[in-house]
Amino acid sequence: MLKFLTAGESHGPALICIIEGLPAGLKIDVPAIDAELARRQKAPGRGERMRIEQDTVTVLSGLRGGVTLGSPLTMQILNRDYVNWEGSMHPHRPSTGQKVTCPRPGHADYPGMVKYGFDDARNVLERASARETALRTAIGAVARQVLRLKGVEIYSRVSALGQLTFDAVAETPEAYQRAQAHPFSENESQSQAAEELIASCRATGVSVGGVVEIAAFNLPIGLGSYVHADRRLDGRIAGALMSIPAVRGVEIGEAFALAQSPPGAPADSLRYDTERGIYYVGNANAGLAGGMTTGQPLVLRCAVKPLPTLAPAMTVDLATLLPATPVRERSDVTAVPTVAIVAEAVLAWALLTALLEGPARL
Amino acid sequence: MLKFLTAGESHGPALICIIEGLPAGLKIDVPAIDAELARRQKAPGRGERMRIEQDTVTVLSGLRGGVTLGSPLTMQILNRDYVNWEGSMHPHRPSTGQKVTCPRPGHADYPGMVKYGFDDARNVLERASARETALRTAIGAVARQVLRLKGVEIYSRVSALGQLTFDAVAETPEAYQRAQAHPFSENESQSQAAEELIASCRATGVSVGGVVEIAAFNLPIGLGSYVHADRRLDGRIAGALMSIPAVRGVEIGEAFALAQSPPGAPADSLRYDTERGIYYVGNANAGLAGGMTTGQPLVLRCAVKPLPTLAPAMTVDLATLLPATPVRERSDVTAVPTVAIVAEAVLAWALLTALLEGPARL
Amino acid sequence: MLKFLTAGESHGPALICIIEGLPAGLKIDVPAIDAELARRQKAPGRGERMRIEQDTVTVLSGLRGGVTLGSPLTMQILNRDYVNWEGSMHPHRPSTGQKVTCPRPGHADYPGMVKYGFDDARNVLERASARETALRTAIGAVARQVLRLKGVEIYSRVSALGQLTFDAVAETPEAYQRAQAHPFSENESQSQAAEELIASCRATGVSVGGVVEIAAFNLPIGLGSYVHADRRLDGRIAGALMSIPAVRGVEIGEAFALAQSPPGAPADSLRYDTERGIYYVGNANAGLAGGMTTGQPLVLRCAVKPLPTLAPAMTVDLATLLPATPVRERSDVTAVPTVAIVAEAVLAWALLTALLEGPARL
Amino acid sequence: MLKFLTAGESHGPALICIIEGLPAGLKIDVPAIDAELARRQKAPGRGERMRIEQDTVTVLSGLRGGVTLGSPLTMQILNRDYVNWEGSMHPHRPSTGQKVTCPRPGHADYPGMVKYGFDDARNVLERASARETALRTAIGAVARQVLRLKGVEIYSRVSALGQLTFDAVAETPEAYQRAQAHPFSENESQSQAAEELIASCRATGVSVGGVVEIAAFNLPIGLGSYVHADRRLDGRIAGALMSIPAVRGVEIGEAFALAQSPPGAPADSLRYDTERGIYYVGNANAGLAGGMTTGQPLVLRCAVKPLPTLAPAMTVDLATLLPATPVRERSDVTAVPTVAIVAEAVLAWALLTALLEGPARL
Repeated sequence: MLKFLTAGESHGPALICIIEGLPAGLKIDVPAIDAELARRQKAPGRGERMRIEQDTVTVLSGLRGGVTLGSPLTMQILNRDYVNWEGSMHPHRPSTGQKVTCPRPGHADYPGMVKYGFDDARNVLERASARETALRTAIGAVARQVLRLKGVEIYSRVSALGQLTFDAVAETPEAYQRAQAHPFSENESQSQAAEELIASCRATGVSVGGVVEIAAFNLPIGLGSYVHADRRLDGRIAGALMSIPAVRGVEIGEAFALAQSPPGAPADSLRYDTERGIYYVGNANAGLAGGMTTGQPLVLRCAVKPLPTLAPAMTVDLATLLPATPVRERSDVTAVPTVAIVAEAVLAWALLTALLEGPARL
Repeated sequence: MLKFLTAGESHGPALICIIEGLPAGLKIDVPAIDAELARRQKAPGRGERMRIEQDTVTVLSGLRGGVTLGSPLTMQILNRDYVNWEGSMHPHRPSTGQKVTCPRPGHADYPGMVKYGFDDARNVLERASARETALRTAIGAVARQVLRLKGVEIYSRVSALGQLTFDAVAETPEAYQRAQAHPFSENESQSQAAEELIASCRATGVSVGGVVEIAAFNLPIGLGSYVHADRRLDGRIAGALMSIPAVRGVEIGEAFALAQSPPGAPADSLRYDTERGIYYVGNANAGLAGGMTTGQPLVLRCAVKPLPTLAPAMTVDLATLLPATPVRERSDVTAVPTVAIVAEAVLAWALLTALLEGPARL
Repeated sequence: MLKFLTAGESHGPALICIIEGLPAGLKIDVPAIDAELARRQKAPGRGERMRIEQDTVTVLSGLRGGVTLGSPLTMQILNRDYVNWEGSMHPHRPSTGQKVTCPRPGHADYPGMVKYGFDDARNVLERASARETALRTAIGAVARQVLRLKGVEIYSRVSALGQLTFDAVAETPEAYQRAQAHPFSENESQSQAAEELIASCRATGVSVGGVVEIAAFNLPIGLGSYVHADRRLDGRIAGALMSIPAVRGVEIGEAFALAQSPPGAPADSLRYDTERGIYYVGNANAGLAGGMTTGQPLVLRCAVKPLPTLAPAMTVDLATLLPATPVRERSDVTAVPTVAIVAEAVLAWALLTALLEGPARL
Repeated sequence: MLKFLTAGESHGPALICIIEGLPAGLKIDVPAIDAELARRQKAPGRGERMRIEQDTVTVLSGLRGGVTLGSPLTMQILNRDYVNWEGSMHPHRPSTGQKVTCPRPGHADYPGMVKYGFDDARNVLERASARETALRTAIGAVARQVLRLKGVEIYSRVSALGQLTFDAVAETPEAYQRAQAHPFSENESQSQAAEELIASCRATGVSVGGVVEIAAFNLPIGLGSYVHADRRLDGRIAGALMSIPAVRGVEIGEAFALAQSPPGAPADSLRYDTERGIYYVGNANAGLAGGMTTGQPLVLRCAVKPLPTLAPAMTVDLATLLPATPVRERSDVTAVPTVAIVAEAVLAWALLTALLEGPARL
């Protein structure tokens, strides 16, 4: 069964992941993985650190001459910033870093300190950092290359940035591909409004949320299964997307709007003709029915919250028990465009996992 | 590690589940499990079958004298309707049932037939049926009893039924408990409107969706973890909720609304006083930060779709390849109140799983 | 991924298992499962209880008209003895049974009581009982039917009973099939000696151990894998066999003898001819190399201990802290012939699990 | 739940492992990990490669200032030999290496080629190599440090090398510690005979097997469980030990000898006195009963086969289908002393996994 482990602190020596369960004989294009990492780093709204890191993947195992061996595949991303943090973050030399004793209330800091018994929030925030999504992007980049062999294509776009919404995109790979050529929208004035919003957020030190849309095309029918709760693809995808930091909502199609519509919703039909065989007409299922792909475009949306680092919160200095202002770790103005790219990767992984399950029939 | 398997076809002899990993020495109240099953069956909007089934649990293992043994706990719910279906559904005698060859487009039917190579949609729909949620309700009822030993309380309510929305409820157990005494709302006229909507749907043969809200109180801080993607409680909960049939969206707090708000969202603070120690002020986190509980009320919302069985779809008779009208299996008018109860159960399970993980510190 | 859960106390209402992950469309012969249960119950050396139980399986899910649905398959074996134990063992009524306070030192009793905090060893021994192997036999009987579709055959025999050893059997399905027609050996005098040994053990109230040999034929090449420690078939099989109660040793081929031989062991060769293609000559690998099947006969041996119930041990009455004689639960004189049958089943499961893994190559 | 993934080809850039699920706050001594790697490399009987590699671990995550963070712990061992193999083994540059087309019959080579569809056995042997046990040694070294906090000590010794057997060792940590100071035996003449045997094997190019004994002391009672087959510690340990390359047999205590003894085996007793409380007298259980630790010394034995690389086998050149002599990869004369060290590590991991399971009682 396909699985992975990721590892690495945000300012530690490196990020590392191991993927176990890949079939043998797959050509993997390493520069294409790096290209996904670059997309993630150059997404609008990123903060200063992105000028320091230029993530590239070093493959350490599982690949020979660019082809998978069937053995575990390791990817490593060195943290270039580590040299500046070695005193504080060295794995086994005593830390010379100052303790972070003022947990940020919108983050993992405080529950993490309580859970693990730390008096230094750095012990939490280093791993809770969204930097881990670089690895998930890399893992998804591998998954996507495998899916592409089956014709599957995955795209994303930002569909709302705060109160701004962007023109809808037709459910075709071509339309999404065109949309992806622009950071927000093919519509010039919408795109400009988004960039102005980000600039204004950066100037005033506030963050903005938004909605991302992810779409997958040319999927085989029947990925996932209804036979057991944990094999339903809807649940797996939702779980994976919601585990992306800053994602706080997931819907299949426009589920929340549909839930609040008058009775009698739109419905798909099945039709037959000799040329196409049996096919769905319409996509009210948004590509998922009964926990399985229908073969129609799969469309998902994630609600992304404004980044809590920039929120106007107060905290307590745990060393003194006095009120304090949370330390501001370097941060982005908005995670929305970044999450879009990570969400593509996460979806690719969930789909590949379903694709590589054991046989449905002997 | 806590885990379960469920089994059972909708019109087969029985539904069965096994829970593995429960601690020993826990008092389990079996009638209280049945009470949850009854709540599920009597939820507004249910169809005819509920007059046939009166689900009760038979515990077959794992319990002795009402106390867990630490061994696998089996619960069985007999399908009373099986006597009427034995000819078609007997496990090993040849089936005398007529094949269902007209898959319903909004269901698992067609992708299931393709995936598993069936020419009879009954082979799919029997297991894809939401009847499986009776087991998940029973499993959750067990989990909830264990959580209650730690003071944890879980409630739900319908917050919207189609275009009707119901008054918000304060984030306290008392307020939710009061709200749960009414099928939809303490507000008489809202409740009446909901019942009228359901009656009208039943009369016209259409279905309506809605939104359910689930809330958990008195949670310990630090359930779940940020250390690995698959251990984040947000992802696990979302995955579990989305795997409930008819659920198509999940959000933590009001995530989609927040995502589309102006920059600069509300934020929690941490405060200290000698009496309460360190505590959160506010609940912008909706009880979850960094993939962990904050100890504040955990508030989740699910978008529930109108039931596709009642949708105006066409299909293909796979035996003749001619256009056909999908067979209508007996069905509910709306799944929303039922999903609310199942969602409580599913959440209870996810929380218990997190509670029973290995030690965070030796 | 193929998996199962088993449940049930030895004197509780029933034994139940759920298998998840079976492909759809497989014909399952339920009487053939019962036949395996009967073989297990009628194995030489069994005790009194076997006159009470006549195990038969009731399939409650996952099968329709004798064909797998791809959904979880449930098998239930009612404990006929439960009527005599209901007062003590009822799942939720208060137990009227007398506590077992004198743990048997060779069993799970005492460590189980300490681990789970019990003052009644019955809470342990009911689940720790080898009665659970009835379920594993049933599960293996299903696995074996699936394997047989691929031509795989599994046999076992007792190769030693205490100091008696039985004539070796050629590594062919025919030879094993012939050997299986006799409880111990085709050699009349050896067989008679074994039966006399059992009779003498029964008369004197002692137990005897032995060695069982399990062999699988017509295996495809490449089941299992070297790519990760937990995917090696040797480890999986050894783990499964060693988890059979009374099994205390496992070897592939004659590993312990080989380990203590002069340097320079026998070796297989690979050869090619046009008719057979590439094939192994010899079976020094005993069918397993690099954690994978070689396609040659797979030969395993298990060391089975004498049953500790009949051992001359003293214990402590935990209620009084005084020395005591352990209570003798009804028991068999020797587990060896029974273990042989359970081991076949356990091996079948391990092989099927490997067979149903995801694709090695897309 | 504690888990790990390992990765790395034998002549690839590096070996890497990630451990997930370690508690926070544990002091880890990195040089002590390296010391275990050195023990493994300097074990008698190793081949030439050990002069090239000097394995040391680089910790890349999960540790800060020498203390676990609760996050995934990564260890990397660079393959110094990689510089000599880069042309052949580079992960993504086209390989300039010559294909290995003559699979060695006693290894993973041929079944691996068939399973994964390779025409170059190097694609198999690089990962199937026992070099992976360096990582398992490192993982076990971490586990052992954690266990030591609870007082648990693990030792091993070679108890037989081919036909040579070495004096038994008392079941005490002190006796094992003394024995471990010698490569084979405290008995001078036995030790010398062993070294002469190895020298003679090396001279004549043959390999010898043997038996290793692993013992763990000061274990808590009740690690593992009887409640489900896959939670039995006997099964888990056997599975883990058997997955060490070259291990072909595993027994608890002297199981095979006991199985072939006269009826009526030795038995442990339980006794009580005010000073020690309740305790076992004797260790016929060899530390394991009912799938759980008894708290008595845990004693295991593994049968290790002669290394097949040095076996007199013929093979087929798959490129030409002509008979051929298998290529001899650099190899050891005997794996026995090395396996002893790896087995300690593997046992440490299995014990730690059991120790870190969820609570048996709330």
